[in-house]
Amino acid sequence: MQRLYLPQDLSVQAQVETTPEQAHYLANVLRMREGAQVLLFNGRDGEWLAQVAALSRKGATLSVNERTRPQTPMPDLLYCFAPLKKGRLDYLVQKAVEMGAGILQPVVTQHTQVPKLGLPRLQANVIEAAEQCGILSIPAIREPVKLEVLLKDWHDERILVFCDEDAPGDNPLAALAGLAGNRLGLLVGPEGGFSEAEREQLRALPFVVPIPLGPRILRADTAAVAALALLQAAAGDWRDE
Amino acid sequence: MQRLYLPQDLSVQAQVETTPEQAHYLANVLRMREGAQVLLFNGRDGEWLAQVAALSRKGATLSVNERTRPQTPMPDLLYCFAPLKKGRLDYLVQKAVEMGAGILQPVVTQHTQVPKLGLPRLQANVIEAAEQCGILSIPAIREPVKLEVLLKDWHDERILVFCDEDAPGDNPLAALAGLAGNRLGLLVGPEGGFSEAEREQLRALPFVVPIPLGPRILRADTAAVAALALLQAAAGDWRDE
Repeated sequence: MQRLYLPQDLSVQAQVETTPEQAHYLANVLRMREGAQVLLFNGRDGEWLAQVAALSRKGATLSVNERTRPQTPMPDLLYCFAPLKKGRLDYLVQKAVEMGAGILQPVVTQHTQVPKLGLPRLQANVIEAAEQCGILSIPAIREPVKLEVLLKDWHDERILVFCDEDAPGDNPLAALAGLAGNRLGLLVGPEGGFSEAEREQLRALPFVVPIPLGPRILRADTAAVAALALLQAAAGDWRDE
Repeated sequence: MQRLYLPQDLSVQAQVETTPEQAHYLANVLRMREGAQVLLFNGRDGEWLAQVAALSRKGATLSVNERTRPQTPMPDLLYCFAPLKKGRLDYLVQKAVEMGAGILQPVVTQHTQVPKLGLPRLQANVIEAAEQCGILSIPAIREPVKLEVLLKDWHDERILVFCDEDAPGDNPLAALAGLAGNRLGLLVGPEGGFSEAEREQLRALPFVVPIPLGPRILRADTAAVAALALLQAAAGDWRDE
């Protein structure tokens, strides 16, 4: 069943009005008509089953019926990434949401090539990915920061995992398993990688854990998903508890 | 340094002629001139350092100087995947190569939507990914087969891992770690997932190991990279030995 994010309060027998854009999406993209069912969430009140009561160009009226899932806390994973070029950046952001990132923090590094980040486009990608992957809250997107500022302002109780092409060995699992129970961040570099100076600076910090990612060279967007999967399975919310 | 795949034999002081297409690639895409260095591999003789001796529209002449790496065996991982639509399929195939697949086996399932697979395009993607990710051989691409035929003809000593949205729990690591040392295959479904009948058939086979992939729904191409990373790290060639 289709899931739709909207900001209004959700409760039994509430009637919510969507925006014209959302009405267009429901009517023309999702091909819904009066009586069609949809799941709603707003990041606060859990997930609710609703029905289309009326549909026009100005907006759709949705009758909210019953709650299907209670609200869960926002994931705590702080995902720091150097922006890639448009198409790959869209995928990067969608996949970070699918993989459980709670905060998306763009980071400008020495080899970052993207001059200007379109935050509205990122936000749209995040919402769409959240609707599709079944989560109950929308990950936050922060304004871009330079790497040196990110590290200077870092809250030390959070461990920052970073993908280090010079890390010894090939396997990150042991290092990651040791981090279970900590607040975590992950840093993925740009297509050109981190500079030597950046790598040295990162490795010198007490809250940083460098990890290898196998014996081959990975594109930045491949490394991102691989690192997220390994981090979540070894130390994050893929663990069965 | 740039890496180039070509099929000719490579040895000390050999002179190899490229095709006109490769000459165009060297001259106009890689912007090389006489004297430029390039790394060559052919899947048999390891990796060699070479220099551009001459460059014309008809072909480039490369002087092969010294071997930089000996040949390694082709990876054994049999990667079975339902084709996705063009753009996502290109990425899927590139990422499979980066993540160490040895054989790429397209599989037609009930919910597979792609009518015709362009094997030359896949081949070009595989070669480019192999050149970029530093590997010494080109993964093989097989003709598409129906899922039932794949399973009927399966060689039982190879374990087939499949991403099962109904698998109990969220974490695949324990199941995967138990497979270390076996010949392995991985099966990733289409965007619409496997049908209930297909999932029942798969689960009933003695060589099949179903794995979960976390608490959220993953797009097929996200699941592919996540599953490959976990399989390689827990049971494959990311292990330090």
